[in-house]
Amino acid sequence: MDNFLTEAGGIMGNSLIENREFNEICYKRQAHYYETDRMDVIHHSNYIRWFEEARIYYLEQIGFGYDKMESLGILSPVLSVSCEYKSSVRFHEEVLIYPKIEFFNGIKMAISYVVKDARTGKVRATGESKHCFVDSKFKPIRMKKDFNEIYTILSNCVAE
Amino acid sequence: MDNFLTEAGGIMGNSLIENREFNEICYKRQAHYYETDRMDVIHHSNYIRWFEEARIYYLEQIGFGYDKMESLGILSPVLSVSCEYKSSVRFHEEVLIYPKIEFFNGIKMAISYVVKDARTGKVRATGESKHCFVDSKFKPIRMKKDFNEIYTILSNCVAE
Amino acid sequence: MDNFLTEAGGIMGNSLIENREFNEICYKRQAHYYETDRMDVIHHSNYIRWFEEARIYYLEQIGFGYDKMESLGILSPVLSVSCEYKSSVRFHEEVLIYPKIEFFNGIKMAISYVVKDARTGKVRATGESKHCFVDSKFKPIRMKKDFNEIYTILSNCVAE
Amino acid sequence: MDNFLTEAGGIMGNSLIENREFNEICYKRQAHYYETDRMDVIHHSNYIRWFEEARIYYLEQIGFGYDKMESLGILSPVLSVSCEYKSSVRFHEEVLIYPKIEFFNGIKMAISYVVKDARTGKVRATGESKHCFVDSKFKPIRMKKDFNEIYTILSNCVAE
Repeated sequence: MDNFLTEAGGIMGNSLIENREFNEICYKRQAHYYETDRMDVIHHSNYIRWFEEARIYYLEQIGFGYDKMESLGILSPVLSVSCEYKSSVRFHEEVLIYPKIEFFNGIKMAISYVVKDARTGKVRATGESKHCFVDSKFKPIRMKKDFNEIYTILSNCVAE
Repeated sequence: MDNFLTEAGGIMGNSLIENREFNEICYKRQAHYYETDRMDVIHHSNYIRWFEEARIYYLEQIGFGYDKMESLGILSPVLSVSCEYKSSVRFHEEVLIYPKIEFFNGIKMAISYVVKDARTGKVRATGESKHCFVDSKFKPIRMKKDFNEIYTILSNCVAE
Repeated sequence: MDNFLTEAGGIMGNSLIENREFNEICYKRQAHYYETDRMDVIHHSNYIRWFEEARIYYLEQIGFGYDKMESLGILSPVLSVSCEYKSSVRFHEEVLIYPKIEFFNGIKMAISYVVKDARTGKVRATGESKHCFVDSKFKPIRMKKDFNEIYTILSNCVAE
Repeated sequence: MDNFLTEAGGIMGNSLIENREFNEICYKRQAHYYETDRMDVIHHSNYIRWFEEARIYYLEQIGFGYDKMESLGILSPVLSVSCEYKSSVRFHEEVLIYPKIEFFNGIKMAISYVVKDARTGKVRATGESKHCFVDSKFKPIRMKKDFNEIYTILSNCVAE
């Protein structure tokens, strides 16, 4: 499980790994101008997109990147999303997004997200997304049987 | 409460009122090309935006349009959103979105949404958003005391 | 060429045809809340998306809808876009977008757009997009030879 | 003019400065999943947003960041944008965007953009945006007279 921690501090794509606490992967993101709305805050719909960015980044860090998913023929549709808004993010501010796998049983997976202001650490939002795993014909996949390596990775990452 | 039903079938903005059942206001929406993603379906984040469109339309129909809100100095921030995805919407398909006020106590409001395929009636998604009411200085508003007319309108619309 | 004018005033999708002048197809669109930015105007990037909505609508009206394009195996990639911003569109305002085919030679096509305020007629923006036609393997298509019916439709629509 | 080069290689926001050639500031960006469309490529409208990200980043690097602009009461509306698409960007690919000030006379400014694939250097797109400078009441600003320091910075950055 610790193998991805060695990359901490490294740069991947347009984001940074930061390990504030043990076992936490963090996705850093700056709020863009075009993401603001007329109340001078980031429009609430964008957090759902930020969760996706953070999720893809997280899965990549633990060894289940998109390239791998696709080469294995695995799709992971979104079953549900939710977000609670605690305080506003403004233009140009940086947030740190902490995804965690809360549940995984080989068939479904739930990931939680905490969005914090990068400077103050103040919580901006929390949220969750739920996913299943299907093949290219949208048939459900049983990860334990069909992709045991991935099953083990995801199982080991479930937050305690 | 029936006053807004008289407008049923009329055209407002880029949408249509349709009253399939008594007491239901419905927002019609076509899925745009730029809302699709590489899985050839509407990206899940757009449903949160569609909810907003439907909410603004709904509130307008019941007599609490944005013009009125703003002239009264009322803001209605989003406290939370959620969406469950049941089946995919594809490019160019039309959906009907049915918002309902599920809860309103003068301080907070919860609105639910059902997204249906316009042709088949099949449910595409369900969701909810929660809101509070604040003035321009972000101070909580007590609708019953300060805006009794609006309070009555919203109270009367709470789904049974 | 006159055949599509008979539908004028009808409703298609979430838009309206309006024929202010002879030979003009017009796409009506209301500006959404989530399209605003912190300057309290519609963010300039959204106009490019509105052009796409108007273009798809226009082509549908003249008999070259997306269903038809796809059933014929024709793709029409965007080669370039441009937009000049004349005055701001604000939340909830309605605009009328007038697309016109400025150039078509069977291989390439240029469409211009005029965006007007629906209430005042004031020009908000003008723009252009350029397109080619390819098959599913991204091989260029010669419309005159391979799809003569479509070639004739598009040729007849070129603005004088 | 060389002062901003000293920061080269530093990290600012979710982007990296890279100086491939002398005098070039480069904004690095990964293509997000939600930016794709049903053709499995980045939707063309997103490039206009990427230009904005790159422009804000560029201006920040040369000493005219948003904080400074706002504290001076300067707004810089977009007068026009254009983009030519040369080859597709796909999900998860990284691009390098090279903004350059092509024109600046104290009243108007034109910035060009080149978008290259980060791995191969292949040009994905080129574009341009034009801007003016106004105060909070949308009155034109004469930079040379009113903000000579900024005038000098921008003048020195005009590409030869």
